[in-house]
Amino acid sequence: MIPGPIDPPARLLMGPGPISAYPSVLRAMSAPLVGQYDPFMTAAMAETQELYRGVWNTRNEATLLVDGTSRGGIEAAILSLVRPGDRVLVPVFGRFGHLLAEIAERALAEVHTIETDWGQVFPASVIEEAIVRVKPTLLALVQGDTSTTMNQPLEDIGEICRRHGVLFYTDATASLGGNAFDADAWGLDAATAGLQKCLGGPSGSSPITLSPRAVEVIQSRKKVEAGIREAGDASAADFVRSNYFDLGQILDYWGPRRLNHHTEATSMLYAARECARVMLLEGRDAVLERHAVAGAAMLAGVQALGLGVFGDVAHKMTNVVAVEIPEGVPGDAARTALLEDFGIEIGTSFGPLHGRVWRIGTMGYNARKDAVLTTLAALESVLRRFGASVPAGGGVEAAADVFRAAAASPAASDPAGAL
Amino acid sequence: MIPGPIDPPARLLMGPGPISAYPSVLRAMSAPLVGQYDPFMTAAMAETQELYRGVWNTRNEATLLVDGTSRGGIEAAILSLVRPGDRVLVPVFGRFGHLLAEIAERALAEVHTIETDWGQVFPASVIEEAIVRVKPTLLALVQGDTSTTMNQPLEDIGEICRRHGVLFYTDATASLGGNAFDADAWGLDAATAGLQKCLGGPSGSSPITLSPRAVEVIQSRKKVEAGIREAGDASAADFVRSNYFDLGQILDYWGPRRLNHHTEATSMLYAARECARVMLLEGRDAVLERHAVAGAAMLAGVQALGLGVFGDVAHKMTNVVAVEIPEGVPGDAARTALLEDFGIEIGTSFGPLHGRVWRIGTMGYNARKDAVLTTLAALESVLRRFGASVPAGGGVEAAADVFRAAAASPAASDPAGAL
Repeated sequence: MIPGPIDPPARLLMGPGPISAYPSVLRAMSAPLVGQYDPFMTAAMAETQELYRGVWNTRNEATLLVDGTSRGGIEAAILSLVRPGDRVLVPVFGRFGHLLAEIAERALAEVHTIETDWGQVFPASVIEEAIVRVKPTLLALVQGDTSTTMNQPLEDIGEICRRHGVLFYTDATASLGGNAFDADAWGLDAATAGLQKCLGGPSGSSPITLSPRAVEVIQSRKKVEAGIREAGDASAADFVRSNYFDLGQILDYWGPRRLNHHTEATSMLYAARECARVMLLEGRDAVLERHAVAGAAMLAGVQALGLGVFGDVAHKMTNVVAVEIPEGVPGDAARTALLEDFGIEIGTSFGPLHGRVWRIGTMGYNARKDAVLTTLAALESVLRRFGASVPAGGGVEAAADVFRAAAASPAASDPAGAL
Repeated sequence: MIPGPIDPPARLLMGPGPISAYPSVLRAMSAPLVGQYDPFMTAAMAETQELYRGVWNTRNEATLLVDGTSRGGIEAAILSLVRPGDRVLVPVFGRFGHLLAEIAERALAEVHTIETDWGQVFPASVIEEAIVRVKPTLLALVQGDTSTTMNQPLEDIGEICRRHGVLFYTDATASLGGNAFDADAWGLDAATAGLQKCLGGPSGSSPITLSPRAVEVIQSRKKVEAGIREAGDASAADFVRSNYFDLGQILDYWGPRRLNHHTEATSMLYAARECARVMLLEGRDAVLERHAVAGAAMLAGVQALGLGVFGDVAHKMTNVVAVEIPEGVPGDAARTALLEDFGIEIGTSFGPLHGRVWRIGTMGYNARKDAVLTTLAALESVLRRFGASVPAGGGVEAAADVFRAAAASPAASDPAGAL
């Protein structure tokens, strides 16, 4: 039995990601392939690099894509920046901090973590104290962790890292494109992301940007043979423990020398290029503002439905909210009803939040009024079906008010002003 | 300056890959996204696994995709099957053998290679002798190496490996879908591929199949913490040195437990599913036959143009031919003329063949008569322009004869009969 062509059901993806992609991103992936060294391909790669310099707010020459999901970008950054035995500091405020620590452990780093409660972020002073104590070569810090919805402030961290001679890496997968990001002004040495959140594309390509300082570290890593020869023993040798994620080789592939490495995932490159193009065409500040308004509207909507919100709302990402499941409502059955009866997906939760909250996203293409209001109307209906007492129409009205206010005075709530 | 939507030039990709994708594969990537745990997604993943069991000729439950290019699949297989210090034997007959050896070195294996001249393959007896001498835990052997166009016979290798207690892995990136492959009958423990060759899709997803024996080895690998605890030292510990390519975790993600790992590259999954679907709809044997005929026609065509062919033609892959650049013809300028004036891409070469041969592919969607005849007509024109003496129309006629003969008696040249 050979199945028919792929034919997905209509879905409005309002979870913590992946989300419904921009239609033009889906179309871009249907463009015909070209050869890896076709002048058109080389130009498309260069255009993509320049577009992502705009997305990341950076002048970093080393701004490119890793061919893998966002997790692939994380691994490329950590494996390439960390030598076996190096100390790495990972402040953990959710699930993805644990992932960074695990990846650094597999890279044979000496990993030190500090933790804060889920729903909180770290003050810069706490991170600095840990840096002074641990003396790491790399600080690996998540910006937005969808598991808790928190957005770790990064503004002051780069200066601290520079002062203590520490490389500063951040995983911006969940936050980039929907929350302020300023790679150069914040002193980032490395940052990675994925397409499947605020950038509005499919998972499978990981944008990455590297400061000249990070590039220097990467280029100082040894080739395999030289590393073994110098160390006298492969297990202690200084070479990247991956060919696929060796950023030194990947930089030579994307750089002017265009040395052969992997075969670029051409259709994913087209998608990544279009994600950045869509963002910059609308305007980076306008896109951040759209996420801020849609997130504020969703927050107002769920609160007007009488639902509690998890975590420190002042430090919440714009693009996702953790909504407490009301007493007596079966969380999974309600999510299933939303999916089956309304075609709307919202997210479940991990770890300490498992069974306690739903995560509702407003990102990328779906950071828009009709998506927010439709989700709130459906959620109200489902909550009532499962016996919750909810004010009729309250969620939609409260959210619509936020959109109306934003439309009336766009400058007042413009996050771009804060950059 | 924000560039316009992606708009690639018309190209007929007749190099060693990537090649022009099947139109339906390009269309599949424009299908809307669904959530990672949507019942539709789980079903699409299961369908894809079953389709690839057909492509690989296997009953292996562990048949799935790695989210990366073909090189990602290779690295996942080697990192997950090889413990630090394990002996790995790599017979090298071209560029990709060196790649397997390099990846195994980075995995801290004790790597042993045997080499044969470019353009040759290994007799099974030579591989067995090396196995007896080296006593590896893993044999890592390329099937089709595009750098030399050779197709290493695998039929007898699995039995030899089984007899000596060696795991048998092959990289079938360049060959799968255009040359016979029989994972179970040949005793493969692991095999990986990519979409961008005979499967007729874009680079960026790596099909992989694992025997129950390979799964057992993978599942016996330790978790990071347990590995370090038992070894007392991370550098000697038995855990996979990658989170992204840890097949134990990836199997749990694709398996019935559906444990969270990466976010599946949904659009690439759609592409991979369609590549396999297209192949099985046409019929696996019919697709192999189509590749055999197109390859034979291209071979006859270039020979009729008076061009020499590199390597042991009896062991050539069906889907690529290495054509000697005639004395006096500037190889790169001729390739550029083909691309610029005819929109046809053929390939350059690496290593010892650099500057000596062009590589011309006939694979996937482009393993068809009009693509072969058009390429030969254009090649004749370009050769003449650069002063080569070529018989007028000879290449096209010779190739057309092969297609005519195949159409007249399809069974006679049916490679499926040899399976």
